Amino acid sequence: MSAEFAYIDLLRSLATHPGARGLADDAAVIELGSETLILTHDSIAEGMHVRCGTDPADIAWKLIATNLSDLAAKGAAPLGVLTAHALGEPDWDAAFVEGLRAVLETYDVPLLGGDTIRLPDGAARVFGCTAIGRATCSPVPARSGAKPGDALWVTGAIGDAFAGFTLIEAGGAVPDSLAAAYLRPVPLLFEGRALAPLVHAMMDVSDGLLLDAARMAEASGMTVRIDSARVPISAAARAAIPDRLDEALRWGDDYALLFAAPTDFEAPTAAARIGDFIAVTGAALLLDGRPLEPGDAGGYRH
Amino acid sequence: MSAEFAYIDLLRSLATHPGARGLADDAAVIELGSETLILTHDSIAEGMHVRCGTDPADIAWKLIATNLSDLAAKGAAPLGVLTAHALGEPDWDAAFVEGLRAVLETYDVPLLGGDTIRLPDGAARVFGCTAIGRATCSPVPARSGAKPGDALWVTGAIGDAFAGFTLIEAGGAVPDSLAAAYLRPVPLLFEGRALAPLVHAMMDVSDGLLLDAARMAEASGMTVRIDSARVPISAAARAAIPDRLDEALRWGDDYALLFAAPTDFEAPTAAARIGDFIAVTGAALLLDGRPLEPGDAGGYRH
Repeated sequence: MSAEFAYIDLLRSLATHPGARGLADDAAVIELGSETLILTHDSIAEGMHVRCGTDPADIAWKLIATNLSDLAAKGAAPLGVLTAHALGEPDWDAAFVEGLRAVLETYDVPLLGGDTIRLPDGAARVFGCTAIGRATCSPVPARSGAKPGDALWVTGAIGDAFAGFTLIEAGGAVPDSLAAAYLRPVPLLFEGRALAPLVHAMMDVSDGLLLDAARMAEASGMTVRIDSARVPISAAARAAIPDRLDEALRWGDDYALLFAAPTDFEAPTAAARIGDFIAVTGAALLLDGRPLEPGDAGGYRH
Repeated sequence: MSAEFAYIDLLRSLATHPGARGLADDAAVIELGSETLILTHDSIAEGMHVRCGTDPADIAWKLIATNLSDLAAKGAAPLGVLTAHALGEPDWDAAFVEGLRAVLETYDVPLLGGDTIRLPDGAARVFGCTAIGRATCSPVPARSGAKPGDALWVTGAIGDAFAGFTLIEAGGAVPDSLAAAYLRPVPLLFEGRALAPLVHAMMDVSDGLLLDAARMAEASGMTVRIDSARVPISAAARAAIPDRLDEALRWGDDYALLFAAPTDFEAPTAAARIGDFIAVTGAALLLDGRPLEPGDAGGYRH
């Protein structure tokens, strides 16, 4: 078991409140008066989650957008964000603020507060975001909840972020749509709100389609079968990385919404049906009929 | 202006939601249905906010307790916390979890979620906490609100943490009460709830009594006068650092509650009256009648 899983297992022994959902969901869900609050916190570290040298405005955008994506997966309406900021050079920080401004204005989300710290010289900087939302339906969808016979659906594209990252790393020309998918992901807030009252289970795809789908299956006590030919990989991604489409299913950063709903479900938003759920077998996930070995789901296990 | 203040000034241009309180308060305050939410996020960095080599259980305690102290300053009842954790060695992380367990059980606060990240090797680790509470009175006290003729009061002791830190640094014997004040501060949640409906302004003392009192005066558009002889410095601190009591007013980490209330206020909890508010003069703070030069308030400006 990785150090991270060992740590999260220890934490889980503390997280006994039902709102914590066993630390196995995208967000915490707590009742407060007549409302239901959705809470999530994710961090980004330089050199780990973003390439060193990334435009600070893009880091700011991604920090906020990835947290809003967790709210989207709960069908929540954002109430605001708090940020944790490790100071850099003044120009760098000013550009970061402009990225914050862009993403917060785009999604009409208030900045409510946060914290600013100075790290020791040379330290990798870490940026955190807590996003708070209110549920717009009850119950709030969880990762668990997929039922036998449900189909697995995805809203949004898979692989564009990986293709964008790959081209940026290679240093050549990068189609705008692929660069944006990697640098400035779009949280599917409207889609999430439309889907949340209707689906049996939902989550966002942040750590790789296969890994995240396997997690939904495990949380639901099911096996999920995925037909790779049905996965919505954009024409731009197919053109950019024709030999690496397998990796696109495993890489993550897609911020698509993955959900379980009946096969005859009429999605209120464009969605691709990419698989189905069956009674649990030895494997959580079958890809084109073959069980995926542990470790072969790839994905960003964080 | 420091890089930090420059950054926060930029952020303030984004934080126009009234719940952000202009980023000039201990916490954000937002209305939700019939309830009022209180939200705060603070981080701790190894080598900056805690000495390297500090027991991980103490770091965990301090991380949570300092955020709960911000809720206490609003009179809020905690609903839960989210944590951001930078992974260390497994034993270190396990000890950290035991510190989390201790503080969360002591104050009966649920762990709701959070994030775990791995930083690049050698990076200073950063730990974050978002604390969420519900207001128990309306309006929720702010730093602003002190009125002419109000007295300045403090609940809790000033200087114990500084004395504890000083003795720990010196490597000699440390009285338990002083070590605990530095390593395991007590958030004054009950005191905060009792005071919140009654006071004109309130905040916790995290960055130094003088700096924090000056902030309250500035936020209220007043000048505050402090009588240093009235500041509640414990006998243990007086014995430990007899020559450095001036510094104890400036060092911080006290997590006492500082509040403004009429001079004849009958505090529902033990409180010392240490000064008063007058119409604004050239200085935000007069210490024993002398204006404090900018820079002489000391304190931890973060």
